This record gives sequence, structure tokens and C-alpha cells, in this order.
Amino acid sequence: MHVGILTGGGDCPGLNAVIRAVTLALINECGARVTGIRRGFLGLIERDVQALDRAAVAGILAQGGTILATHNKCDPFHYFGAGGADVSARAMAFVRELGLDALVAIGGDGTMTIAHRFEALGLPVVGVPKTIDNDLQHTDRTFGFDSAVAVVAEALDRLETTARSHGRVMVLETMGRYAGWIALEGGMAGGADVILLPELPYQLEAVADVCRAREVQGLCTLVCIAEGAKAEGGELVVAQTLADSPDPLRLGGVGAVLAHQLQPLVQSEVRATLLGHVQRGGSPTPFDRVLATRFGYAAAQLVERRQWGRMVTLAGSDIASVPLEAVAGRNRPVPADHPLLAAARGLGVSLG
Amino acid sequence: MHVGILTGGGDCPGLNAVIRAVTLALINECGARVTGIRRGFLGLIERDVQALDRAAVAGILAQGGTILATHNKCDPFHYFGAGGADVSARAMAFVRELGLDALVAIGGDGTMTIAHRFEALGLPVVGVPKTIDNDLQHTDRTFGFDSAVAVVAEALDRLETTARSHGRVMVLETMGRYAGWIALEGGMAGGADVILLPELPYQLEAVADVCRAREVQGLCTLVCIAEGAKAEGGELVVAQTLADSPDPLRLGGVGAVLAHQLQPLVQSEVRATLLGHVQRGGSPTPFDRVLATRFGYAAAQLVERRQWGRMVTLAGSDIASVPLEAVAGRNRPVPADHPLLAAARGLGVSLG
Amino acid sequence: MHVGILTGGGDCPGLNAVIRAVTLALINECGARVTGIRRGFLGLIERDVQALDRAAVAGILAQGGTILATHNKCDPFHYFGAGGADVSARAMAFVRELGLDALVAIGGDGTMTIAHRFEALGLPVVGVPKTIDNDLQHTDRTFGFDSAVAVVAEALDRLETTARSHGRVMVLETMGRYAGWIALEGGMAGGADVILLPELPYQLEAVADVCRAREVQGLCTLVCIAEGAKAEGGELVVAQTLADSPDPLRLGGVGAVLAHQLQPLVQSEVRATLLGHVQRGGSPTPFDRVLATRFGYAAAQLVERRQWGRMVTLAGSDIASVPLEAVAGRNRPVPADHPLLAAARGLGVSLG
Amino acid sequence: MHVGILTGGGDCPGLNAVIRAVTLALINECGARVTGIRRGFLGLIERDVQALDRAAVAGILAQGGTILATHNKCDPFHYFGAGGADVSARAMAFVRELGLDALVAIGGDGTMTIAHRFEALGLPVVGVPKTIDNDLQHTDRTFGFDSAVAVVAEALDRLETTARSHGRVMVLETMGRYAGWIALEGGMAGGADVILLPELPYQLEAVADVCRAREVQGLCTLVCIAEGAKAEGGELVVAQTLADSPDPLRLGGVGAVLAHQLQPLVQSEVRATLLGHVQRGGSPTPFDRVLATRFGYAAAQLVERRQWGRMVTLAGSDIASVPLEAVAGRNRPVPADHPLLAAARGLGVSLG
Repeated sequence: MHVGILTGGGDCPGLNAVIRAVTLALINECGARVTGIRRGFLGLIERDVQALDRAAVAGILAQGGTILATHNKCDPFHYFGAGGADVSARAMAFVRELGLDALVAIGGDGTMTIAHRFEALGLPVVGVPKTIDNDLQHTDRTFGFDSAVAVVAEALDRLETTARSHGRVMVLETMGRYAGWIALEGGMAGGADVILLPELPYQLEAVADVCRAREVQGLCTLVCIAEGAKAEGGELVVAQTLADSPDPLRLGGVGAVLAHQLQPLVQSEVRATLLGHVQRGGSPTPFDRVLATRFGYAAAQLVERRQWGRMVTLAGSDIASVPLEAVAGRNRPVPADHPLLAAARGLGVSLG
Repeated sequence: MHVGILTGGGDCPGLNAVIRAVTLALINECGARVTGIRRGFLGLIERDVQALDRAAVAGILAQGGTILATHNKCDPFHYFGAGGADVSARAMAFVRELGLDALVAIGGDGTMTIAHRFEALGLPVVGVPKTIDNDLQHTDRTFGFDSAVAVVAEALDRLETTARSHGRVMVLETMGRYAGWIALEGGMAGGADVILLPELPYQLEAVADVCRAREVQGLCTLVCIAEGAKAEGGELVVAQTLADSPDPLRLGGVGAVLAHQLQPLVQSEVRATLLGHVQRGGSPTPFDRVLATRFGYAAAQLVERRQWGRMVTLAGSDIASVPLEAVAGRNRPVPADHPLLAAARGLGVSLG
Repeated sequence: MHVGILTGGGDCPGLNAVIRAVTLALINECGARVTGIRRGFLGLIERDVQALDRAAVAGILAQGGTILATHNKCDPFHYFGAGGADVSARAMAFVRELGLDALVAIGGDGTMTIAHRFEALGLPVVGVPKTIDNDLQHTDRTFGFDSAVAVVAEALDRLETTARSHGRVMVLETMGRYAGWIALEGGMAGGADVILLPELPYQLEAVADVCRAREVQGLCTLVCIAEGAKAEGGELVVAQTLADSPDPLRLGGVGAVLAHQLQPLVQSEVRATLLGHVQRGGSPTPFDRVLATRFGYAAAQLVERRQWGRMVTLAGSDIASVPLEAVAGRNRPVPADHPLLAAARGLGVSLG
Repeated sequence: MHVGILTGGGDCPGLNAVIRAVTLALINECGARVTGIRRGFLGLIERDVQALDRAAVAGILAQGGTILATHNKCDPFHYFGAGGADVSARAMAFVRELGLDALVAIGGDGTMTIAHRFEALGLPVVGVPKTIDNDLQHTDRTFGFDSAVAVVAEALDRLETTARSHGRVMVLETMGRYAGWIALEGGMAGGADVILLPELPYQLEAVADVCRAREVQGLCTLVCIAEGAKAEGGELVVAQTLADSPDPLRLGGVGAVLAHQLQPLVQSEVRATLLGHVQRGGSPTPFDRVLATRFGYAAAQLVERRQWGRMVTLAGSDIASVPLEAVAGRNRPVPADHPLLAAARGLGVSLG
């Protein structure tokens, strides 16, 4: 058997652990030949591949990123390099030339959708979910998320000592454009006083109230805000602040804007931090390494058993799988009744 | 309402996060008064308590250990200071004097058993499970475990670079006297080549075979051994090696013994590391901080709802609870059919 | 003897290690009484002090921030709360009331200048240098700097894995308004390809050239830019970009501006990270703990020997001291002939 | 010009940073060809080499160990594989065959001695000092040492939280067979209460006294002991304890022995940790990366200027160099009048 592997979409810690687990398990249990397709589906179009054997995956378990590189815009069915043309036939010709019997696709809902279409063209596919934002349907947790949460929590730990020494308000912006999981878990792990999520529009005055109430008690305030968080009617305020800036998110982000808006409303000095891609880089946490390894091994088992068209998932503590068509195009925001929101409120954390 | 909290048994990262969550939630949601009982149940006998308010729990979320201290031998029903006498009546007198309406007991199966007996004497109890070894029945995961796994994985990361530079065999001994969860997850996260658990007696020759096969390929070998791991018929070998030593585990541990036994069987130099209590110290990982916070909040809710005699648990991703009597005296070894064992074997890891 | 201690200016990792060392050494070697003055010189005006004994400094060695809090605007000779009035007499009255025989002042050149003026009023002073930017005259290294460099290097380590997976340009902004030490050492430690310092105005086109040359080779680019770095004639460009923004540095910083300017000049996606106060928070590195401890012990010895009016320094590997008047109002940029600049160029790092 | 590089003796964090700096600087500044000699001098005998170019050293700055591997027993002048024969002529024949114009040797005093002898045979040599123990003459600090100190300090940080929760005595054994620098700086950075060095024989009763005095105050005790530390007349005690054990250091080390001996003398439970090779593995600290990079660049400059027969050194904050013959066969224990010993005593740390 000859199996291809690719990583699509944005990278995150744990991708190499999946690649390693899939490769070793397929070699050990099926005697398979394994080929890595480079830069996501682009590798199928640009004929960019590399052989994967024991030596190639030795020592990559703890490495961040992906040794196969990735691409977050390439869809062979709407090929960006060809103005949106469907070049999938070209990709399939290369698949046949390589003699691939199956493909393990590691990625988010975009990657799963494309993989699903390739399966319809005759390439058996197994999917492994990947999203640093933890917002994929059908899986309770995805690798990379724990690593991102750890970066956020460590940043809050650091900010707390300096905020307390000066009595300051610190605003930390985290990833999470559509779902607030990183800000929520990272904020709770780092002891944030205010956590602002895309799912719960916030009121600037409410945030300022928290800061002022804490100032009176001589306390500093830690604000953890997801990049997709919005003030109620907030777009307008941002527009006023950065009238001529074509792209406020790029130029400092919502955290910088919030800090700018909070400053006149409070006595303390307000400072902003934008972690950016630091959250998706670096060595995966041990939790993510184990989860990614389990995902990779489960994907290899699906290949071994020829259970095509399925994506592995985490259901509670167990690895399971769902059909690829069940995945495509869904996401998973923090539900309003999530127990961690209740716990946050119970501990006195303001959610805006 | 006046609620007591205590931590019993060995400490582990996350205890302070539980104490903080219980305290803040009881104050915020019930207006309760909260009192910490120091050094486990010993505080009830020696009248050693401290008030817990917002200020007392500020900044403890990320701290290792327990601000209440703990004791791992004190059972008021068989009081060690009084030669095994039952001094529970004295403890209950102090409980009534304090005016405690309920007790939140954080600990392992020993603590839960004692707490259950106090409930029979009229002190309503809610339990929070604690075991760094992750070997408590009825809960899928306990806080502290992720932190211990992280310490083990980081040690293996470090050992790998030096082992590879020299072509050595490195033996790392981890905690886990009766259950091998730490060695298994830590070993998998750190890329160990051999993982030895109490649940699976190992053969010294099989371990040496792995080392020698890797030597031939120019590879180093990482061995991760739980402190409770045993060679088949192994006690005898240890006894021969350390004839006059009254306590071989104390004097270097099974890792040192294994290294000593392996050395004549392989060409490479063999070196041992004993992490010991480094595994249960230090700041909890963000994962453990969130889990401990969720446990603490759930315990406060049980108190609020007067659902006495229950211990909070993690079932998959959800917090639940079980009756205290269901917990007592059980433990949870790694089952022979655990999927992570299959994954380990599939990736070529030797389990002895 | 009764000795006061205060921390002035911005906080940084290691302040608590100094406080601990001064306190323990004065108690152990002189039998002194030690009092902490809170929030810098503000504590002398607002009569805000706390006793420091063994228990008060236990466990603070590894803590970030300062247990005495600090204030970076309070100068009793130009008191901000009184519109610039000289309230030093009020402070001295409190000093006499407390019965202070001497003051250990930990801070930067501002703090040293004020301390020097208090000495003229009759309060014997010993100084301990503090600047996270490592830009104080007369001392080769200051505590906090190594910790900041470590934060920068870790961020670059993380950015590298994700940059490489995607072939991106990553811009990391570091502290350093007037001196580029943090960006230089942090950038060298983190393997940055471009390092931009306040001391060396850069050309945007030169930076873009580096990125483009690396793109051609399939390489990502890491840019490490100090907050005080300036393009040649650069103010103008920033002004055009953010016309209506009153404070470009606050709203995203020079890193975000550079990323914005670079994007149209390169093919890769450009992303920015603003670490901000994360660099001055958190536990000090072991190097900084030892250096801060040595500084604190040396300050206690100056007190013991009544060598007033001096600030401790690091000269090579040795602790020495200089007169306070030698310090005031100087700073120490990276000299154009610094060997690390030559090393950077020799390794192919672009300095703009 | 064609330059060889090798790493000899035990590995330590920072070797790859040196290899990278030497390689890049020689390529960039001299247009040199660079060849790595694998496994120390063994590579010259077994003809084991690899080309080093930009791609080969990309991304190795932060990696532990050495990409060239090393060997700590191979001396071509007393070749172990040939029973002590002088095979240096064979090595020199290979040097000529390769066409090496010079050799950069990275290692400790053993490596420098051998390198010096090769120079006499006609191979120009530049040396870079390497010892994790920081005990080499003529250089104030060596890379790898800061990384080892950081591992020790972090272990003490972790041990402190659990020791305090239980009121225990924790014994941590560190590297340092002949010099106590790691135990001294690591112990000071981690807040050890007792630090035991090879240079200062300790009295068991004095250590027990410290533990007991702290027990009375309700305090735990952290003991940091170098592997080469000796009790006054101590060998005898060890021998009695482990009568039949052929190698007490291998079987648990002096830390385990000290814990065993202390236990009957104190009330608290005593626990031991043996960090072993964890101290010399893993990614170098940023401090070590910068120091190693500076050393590597300085070595390349010596090559460029044809200043043969010299080893680069750190003198205070400056890079300098000394003749190789000045180095050979010396080591550098902690001097009895070292200021950090005085500081330790001043802060109340017991030195045994």
C-alpha cells in the first residue's frame, strides 16, 4: 500500500506528531510506503513530494510547525494560481502517477471539504482534524489548542506580576476570530479578570467599571480579549478611532483598540500585548503530543481497515470517527450555556 | 453558611486552584464564610485553621503545592499521634465549635474514605478527587497528572539531545507505584523507545534487545520506567544487587537498578535520572488549572445545592459526580486494552 | 540600625531577589531592622511602609514584580500630586519619624538622581541599578535584562516554526526605546534574520530586500525590531500611514507599522507580534536571580561599611560600586563597534 | 580555505550554536569550505565527516546536543580501539586527504590537549572551550553552564512547593564532580537552604542541624548537593551503607546516600532527586546561545587572521584568547574566597 499525507490550512503545534504517528504505524502495521505531499494540496499540483520513512520522522514529535509545510489558500477545485480554475484532474493525474492508494489529510473544515471532493474522484481519504481554535464540530478537543492556551496563560502569568507592581490594566489579545475557546480557557488558566469572546458582545463601559472597581481596592486588572471580540455596536467606535487605517486588525488589533478606548475611562495606565502567531508556534505541549499521536495512530488504523471517508475525532476520552460529509463547513462557537462560562461568572470573572 | 476546606494526602499541582475556585464561588454565589483546615485532617485535631477570603486566595491559581499544607498519614479514626486511637469525636467537637455546616475534602481515596466516615458523624461532605497518578476510579482525569506528564516529557526532551550526541541509553524513572499512567503518557509525549509500567512485568533481556538493536543502527535509547515497574521475577535480581540495602527504592530507585543491570548487556553507556518529587511540584499546567478550577466550582455547586456525600468527577469533557461510597478503596491501573498501549505498540515502542 | 528599601521606576524581574538579599544580609550580618517603603518614593510621601523580616521575604526570590510595588512618576522634589511642588521636606520628616538610618534605593537613573538629592538632605543612601533595557552607565549588565532576552528568544523560537511552515515574514517588536540591547541579544539568541535597533536607522527597502532574497530560496524571515527603531526619514512614513491616530506607538507599535509597510513589498504574508509588558513580567531567569542576589548582598555590605552615596555595579564578573553622582542622567546605547554587532553581520544578520 | 570542526568530550547545550556561528562566519567572511568531523577525534580515525553549509546549520541554534555527535574517550595519541596505540599519523593522513587547512576544536581540557598535539603535527588549530561545569581555567564562563544552572533552579522551584506543603527535606543532586559551580549558582538561584560542594567537605550533623532548626519553625529544607561533594571522612559512611554495591554513585548517587543518612536524624520525611543528564540536555538558554555564538564568531576570526594555537575565552564581558598550552590539564574549583560563597553565608545558606 502507498499512502500520501498532507497538512492543509494554518499550521499548529502537533502536526508533526500526527505525521510521525501515521507514518510509523503504517510502516509497522501495514508495511506501507508513505509519501508526504508538501504545502497542502499545492503539492499535488506542483508535484512537490518527499518520501517519509523512520529516519524522516525521527525526532519530529516535539517540533512545532509541519515538516511538510502547509498552504492555507490552495483549493485545486478553485485554483488560486489559475484564477479559480478547477485543476483537480491535474492533481489526480499526479496521484495516479505516484500510485497513491489513499490520502491522510490533516486540516480544518476547508481541508476536509476538499479531501471529500477528492474522494469522489477516486482517491480514498482519511481525515485528521486540525484547528488551533478548537472550534471544529464533532470533536471535543483538537491538538494545538492546549499549546495555544498554555502560551496565553504564561503571558497572563507574566503580565500579572508587572501589572500588580504598578497597579495597571493589561489587555492581552489572543487568537480566536470566530470562537473564543482560546481566550476563555487561556483567560481562566491565567487568572484574567475580564474575558471577552466573539460569542458575547461586550460593553466598553462594563469593562471600564471592572477596572475602576478594582482600582479602588488597589488591584490591577487583566483583560483577555479574543481577536474576534466585538463591542456592542463596536465597529463604529473602531472606525472613528482609526479613520484612515485600512485594516485596524492588522495594525495592532482589537486589544490595542480596546486599550486605547479604556485609557481615558480609568486612572491606571493601560498597556496592550498582541501575541499573534506566537500562539501557534513552538513545541506542542505534552497533552497535544499525546492527542496528536492518538489521532495519527487512529487515522492509520482507518487506513488499515479501509474505512474511507471518515475523520478521526475525540469523544470525551475516546478516539472515534465521523463521516467527512458530516464535518464540512461547520464550526463550533462557545455555547452560551457552556459550564466554563458559568464557572467564570461564579468566580467573579467579567464576561463583558 | 460556613464551609471548611481541607487538602489531604500527597500534594500536587492544582490544589490551590481548587481552593481558590471553591472559596470564590461560595463567597460570590452563597455569601458563605469559608475556613481552611490546615494539614489535612490533622487541622481538625490540632485546631489549626485559617480564614479564606478573596485576599487569601488572590494570586494562588498558578502556585504549586497547597496553601493549606497537607498531611499524608493523619486519619482521625486511627490517629497516628495516639497510637491508632479513634479521635474523631475530638475532631467533631472542633467542627461544632467552628460552626462548620459542611466540608469540602480534596484528596485521594484515603481522604474520601475518612471524609465519608465524618459524614456519618453528621458533617456533610463534598469531595474533590486528587491523585497525581491519575489512578482514581470514576474520573477520567485528575488535576496534577497533566503537570507531572509535562515534567516527564520535558526531561525526556532534554535527555534525548544528550543521548543522541553520545549514543547512550538513558533511563528515566517516573512516579507511579501502582499505576503507570505517568510513565505511559509522559513516555509517549517524550518519545521514549521503551516504557515500563507496573501493569506489565518486563523482561530485562527484552529491554537489552531493544537497546542493542538500536545501537546497531547508531541510535540512542530512551527508557521510561515507572517506580512500580517490575521485572518478571525481578525482586530477586534487585535483592542480589543491593543485598545489604534496607530500602532499594529509596537508594536510587528502580531506574538506577535497571541502569545497573542493563550496563553489562549493552555497549553504550547507560545513565539514570530520578525525577522524584520534581514531578509533583511547581506551577500547574494551564490544563490542570482549568480542570482544578472546574472541579472547585462544581464542588461549590454541590454545596450550594446541598448534594452531600458526593465527589465531583470528570466524565469525558463533562463534570459529573458520584457517591463517596462508590470511591473508597478502589484504584485504576492502566487496562491491558487501553488504546494508548495499542498506539505505543503500533509506533514501535517496546512495553518490556 | 534601621534601613529602608524602596523600588522605583518600572518594575522588572529580579527586584524581589534584591529585596530578599538586602533584607536577609542586613538582618544576619548587622542585626538591622528593615522597612520596605511602598510604591517608590511615593511611600515616603503617603507614609506607606511595611516591615521586612525573614518571613516577609521567604519565597519571593523567584517571583516577578516587586512586593513593595513601584511608581514610575513620583519625584518628591517635583511632586506630581502637588503640581510639581518640592515635598521632599515632608518625606524627610517621615524618614526621621521612622528613624531610618539609611536607604537602599533600587531603580534606574531617575531613582538614582532622586536618591542622590535625598542624601544631600541627610539620608545616607546606597543604590542598586535596575533597568530592563541594560542601558545604565557603569554596569556591564543589569538584572531583568536576561529575563527579557529570554522572553524575546522564546517568542522567536515559536514564530520560527510557524513562519517556516508557511513561508512567512514575522515581525516581533521588543522593548528598547532608546537602546537596542534587548532586540540585539534577543534577536541573536532567537536566530532573527533582521535586527533593527534605535541606534542604527534602517531602510525599509533594505529590509524588504532581505525578505525577498529569502523568499527566492524558499525561506521565511524573522524580523526583530526594538520599539525605538526608526526608519531613515521614517517618522514621515508612519505619519502617512496612521494619519488620524494620535499615538501610533500605543496602537500597535512600530512592529505593526513595519509589517504594514513591508506587506506590499514582499510576496509572503507578513504578521506582527507585540510582546509588550510580557517582557518585564514573570519569574526572573536563574542568571538574573543570582545577579540580583549578588547586587543585594553587595548593597547590604556597603550599608554595613557605611560606604554611602554609592551604587553597586557589575564590572565583568565582579561586583564593584561607583559614586551616585557618576550615574545620574546618563544612558548607554549599543556602541557602533560593539562586538555582537560584528558577530551579527558576520553571521549574515541584516541590521537594516 | 578548508576548515574542519569537531566537538569532543561530553556534550552540552550550545555546541550547535558554536558550530553554526563558526560555519556561517567562515563562509560569509572567508568564503571557506567547512567540514564537520563526526564523533570528536574518532571521526578523523574512522573517516567520518559531513559537509557543513548554510542549509546544514539552519535551525540548529536552539537545539541541544551536537549535530556532529561527540565522543568522550577517543584520543588518537592513545587510541582506545587499538589498546592505547598512537594512531595520530592515520588521522593526519586523513586530514591531508581532506585537504584541511585548519581545525576548530570545541571541547574541554582533554580536547584542547589533543588539539595542541595535532598542531605540533602540522594541523593549525583554534580552540573553543566547553565544560558544563564552568571549571576551565582562563575563561570566566562557558556556554552550557547557564543552561545547567537553569535546570537545577527550576527543579528547586518545583521541589520547594511540594516540600513546603508537607514540611519535608528535599535533597537535589547536581552535576559537578570536581567543581561545585552548578550546585552553587543553581542552589542560590533556586533558594536552597543548604549547598554542598566538592570544595567544602561537609559534616552530616551540621546538615541535620539546619533541617531540625527549620523543622522547629515549621519550615521545609532544600539541600542542593554536587555529585562530587564529600562528607568529612565520608567515604567510610557510604561504604558502610552500601556494603555490597560496587558503585554507589551509579546506584542513586551521593544525594540518595545523603537522604538515607539524614532520614534517621530528622523528623521530616527526606526525599532525593537525581537530575543526572537532564542537566546537560535540551535547548540552551538564550544567554548560552549568545555566548556560544560569540565564541564561534571569535574562533572564525582567529582562523581568518591565522592566529593559530589559541583558545577563545570570556574575560569579563569581552571575548579574548589564550595560547592552547596555557589551558591543558588545569581546572578551576570554586575558590574559598569567591564572593558568591560570602553572599550565600550572608543570606543564611549553610555550606555544610
